[in-house]
Amino acid sequence: MRTHTETEKVGSHDHRETYDLIGSDKVEGTNVFRSNGEKIGQIERLMLGKKSGKVAFAVMSFGGFLGLGHDHYPIPWERLSFNESLGGYEVNITDRELQSAPKYDPSNEWQWDRTHDRKVYDYYKLPAYWM
Amino acid sequence: MRTHTETEKVGSHDHRETYDLIGSDKVEGTNVFRSNGEKIGQIERLMLGKKSGKVAFAVMSFGGFLGLGHDHYPIPWERLSFNESLGGYEVNITDRELQSAPKYDPSNEWQWDRTHDRKVYDYYKLPAYWM
Repeated sequence: MRTHTETEKVGSHDHRETYDLIGSDKVEGTNVFRSNGEKIGQIERLMLGKKSGKVAFAVMSFGGFLGLGHDHYPIPWERLSFNESLGGYEVNITDRELQSAPKYDPSNEWQWDRTHDRKVYDYYKLPAYWM
Repeated sequence: MRTHTETEKVGSHDHRETYDLIGSDKVEGTNVFRSNGEKIGQIERLMLGKKSGKVAFAVMSFGGFLGLGHDHYPIPWERLSFNESLGGYEVNITDRELQSAPKYDPSNEWQWDRTHDRKVYDYYKLPAYWM
């Protein structure tokens, strides 16, 4: 996992980002902010469809906030947008949404199966990634 | 960049792989083989559409082979398939294809733009990822 500060430049060009593409290793470790600029965590990894090559979820490791623990939140890619001025992903989630959002921690692991996948997409009111 | 040997298990479950999803950090560093089992390199990173969340290319760092240097090859995701017995991605590329495949090295960087993107997809005879 690398962060934006460890850019790997060749000449003046960062191989990990282009006009419409971004490297997976650049996404990992990138901070996640709320719309008001408050940092809430960072992207731990992307979960990709093995066949489709499409991002199903960004797993956000949550820094502890609102009295909630250091959990992992699978978030549909559509809910994240890169904000240049914040230098990270902005996620449009209310406190209330976050407090009951699907998550897992080491003692209560996430079951990556269709039932749980659907739970996340239903929660964020988005069509499932496999549809 | 992590490899398959550094699995991050919680209980008996690897958070980085499921029945149809795989973690970006698990793909990075994974070996790439030819169909005959010969190792030719490893996945350096995935290049994803910022908006679409779809893998446009896997960037393969090439280990030196056929007298070719240590270059980077952008390969469409569709050309890679995970081979359980090899423990890595199998890429169906002939020596001849590999010798003239689109690539870049530090002194001759890849221009990530539509013209170059198209060049790769044309080379591998696949419809462009943005179509």
